[in-house]
Amino acid sequence: MTSRMRHEIGEQPDALRETVAALLPELDAVRAAAGRTRQVLFIARGSSDNAAVYGRYLAEAYAGRLGTLAAPSIATAYRRKLDLDGVLAVAISQSGRTEEIVETMQWARDCGAVTVGVTNGEGSPLAEAADVALLTRAGEELAVPATKTYTTQLAALAVLAVGLGAEVDVADLARVPDEVERLIEETEGSDALGLITAELAKVPGTVVSARGVAFGSALELALKLKEACYLHAMGLSYADLLHGPIAVVDAETPALVLGAETGPTLEGTVALAVRVTGAGARVYGIGGGAALAAASSVALPGPRLPEWVAPLGLIVPGQLLVERLARTLGIDPDNPRGLRKVTQTGA
Amino acid sequence: MTSRMRHEIGEQPDALRETVAALLPELDAVRAAAGRTRQVLFIARGSSDNAAVYGRYLAEAYAGRLGTLAAPSIATAYRRKLDLDGVLAVAISQSGRTEEIVETMQWARDCGAVTVGVTNGEGSPLAEAADVALLTRAGEELAVPATKTYTTQLAALAVLAVGLGAEVDVADLARVPDEVERLIEETEGSDALGLITAELAKVPGTVVSARGVAFGSALELALKLKEACYLHAMGLSYADLLHGPIAVVDAETPALVLGAETGPTLEGTVALAVRVTGAGARVYGIGGGAALAAASSVALPGPRLPEWVAPLGLIVPGQLLVERLARTLGIDPDNPRGLRKVTQTGA
Repeated sequence: MTSRMRHEIGEQPDALRETVAALLPELDAVRAAAGRTRQVLFIARGSSDNAAVYGRYLAEAYAGRLGTLAAPSIATAYRRKLDLDGVLAVAISQSGRTEEIVETMQWARDCGAVTVGVTNGEGSPLAEAADVALLTRAGEELAVPATKTYTTQLAALAVLAVGLGAEVDVADLARVPDEVERLIEETEGSDALGLITAELAKVPGTVVSARGVAFGSALELALKLKEACYLHAMGLSYADLLHGPIAVVDAETPALVLGAETGPTLEGTVALAVRVTGAGARVYGIGGGAALAAASSVALPGPRLPEWVAPLGLIVPGQLLVERLARTLGIDPDNPRGLRKVTQTGA
Repeated sequence: MTSRMRHEIGEQPDALRETVAALLPELDAVRAAAGRTRQVLFIARGSSDNAAVYGRYLAEAYAGRLGTLAAPSIATAYRRKLDLDGVLAVAISQSGRTEEIVETMQWARDCGAVTVGVTNGEGSPLAEAADVALLTRAGEELAVPATKTYTTQLAALAVLAVGLGAEVDVADLARVPDEVERLIEETEGSDALGLITAELAKVPGTVVSARGVAFGSALELALKLKEACYLHAMGLSYADLLHGPIAVVDAETPALVLGAETGPTLEGTVALAVRVTGAGARVYGIGGGAALAAASSVALPGPRLPEWVAPLGLIVPGQLLVERLARTLGIDPDNPRGLRKVTQTGA
């Protein structure tokens, strides 16, 4: 039987097509908001926070604007005002109904920020309250682990980056849906998917690593492995990993290493894989072109896309891996324990 | 035989006394730098990055200034300029010789920031290059896991927060060293230390959680457990934990939960402990007063300090736990695998 999660993974090409088509016309509104601000503050939680990490690197590396990940407790627990004049506050919530995120966005506006809401929830409190609403077109998502709502958030953040003045070719976005389609086929047709699933089913934990624009993809894969496979998955940039916790990687603790096939962090990503296999641990590469595949113990394919949009494809083999690993472990991927679809984390 | 690490944990009261005495006279220089800026950008890696998380919450919750954790790859890999006019860039490095951090601080100045260097390395490149140098007085640290260099960094960041205009009683800082001394005695005199050590020695991983001003302490304890005990330790704010990865906590995966004995995140911290024990998992509380102790399976003492300086004591029972757990697991806490004292993570 096909899980809802697997079905929704397969809906991503269409969801991405519709989202990009719907959001490109919003570029003028984003540009107007960007013109009134200097820097970006991302407000999010969970998978949306991992999307925010992508948005932050795009804002800094491609659009030259300082990006900050907000600490919502400042708004909701400490109730402290900050000077956010000149700040574009981008709140991201799949449902648009997570109270903490809506409340923190309203706090940001009270502090002087211009607000953008990224949500799949048309008519939701987040969409209604934002100065500019970027509505993703993922359709209804029924499996608890976010897949198409996550990748369409990335698409919205890519459009946001263009509006912020990112030096990129916006036509790259149109190539993403077909590439996601190809990736699903190639991943499921590979021996690597079954092999990595079988190996991960036998270990208590794993490290998931990447850097720069791809770093959010590593955090998202680690989150999914925790949520849906109950694995001790630790998401770390390769710089953080090498700085200390590399000790945790051993024969019982493999590393998943992700990267775009180009970009200034590729060399370090490949070097990490070489170091980890050299220490006797297994490395499962995702993307990173021929260089990362060659340095990995087992390699899943990655997107043939420029670095700035690569994360829209990079998570897809990981989603398929999570879905298959959950079923292998006897977990229903659509309904892992401890989770609800609209999350309220309280103050 | 006493490890160097245990010896250096015991040196913290004196190191903190000397650091606070040395840095309070620097308040005028910090105030002058703060007066030229609006917000703070923290530049750090590893334990210093966990200290930066503390500095960020102090800056926001107590001094009302936006705090951002820098992504060093923007400077060192992407080599992209940002507009950092009006930004106070605070670079933190124990040795003051980690090239990535020195380079990123210099990049921040090139981008228009005023710079502060927090380091134990007198005469180091970081101390020399910063507009204002806050030199900690930890003395030489020989064990690889940072203890006294970390808590003295927190002291420097507390002084920084005062200079940023934090609404606090600076006299609280003078109470910290005696409180750390008391905490070491009380922790080592408790049955809880041995009990938690014995239980953690049998599990592959653990979650470490806190929120707000105490959150950096949870990240630091998780990092130490990874580095020195090779444990799959996942540091998560309780809001992030409840949002999804709570699924990972089970009979085989206990949670360490930390908190100050007062403050607006205490209630949520206690509620987390109640929820986790209710799900059948073990909770080891550190601090959080009588309420967290009552909600925990086993409780270690915490500092009797106001929330804003509580993290200077809160990590201490955790340090003692890490040192004892490493030895129990047959690891030399002074020289865990994979680590060097001066860390270079490359671009």
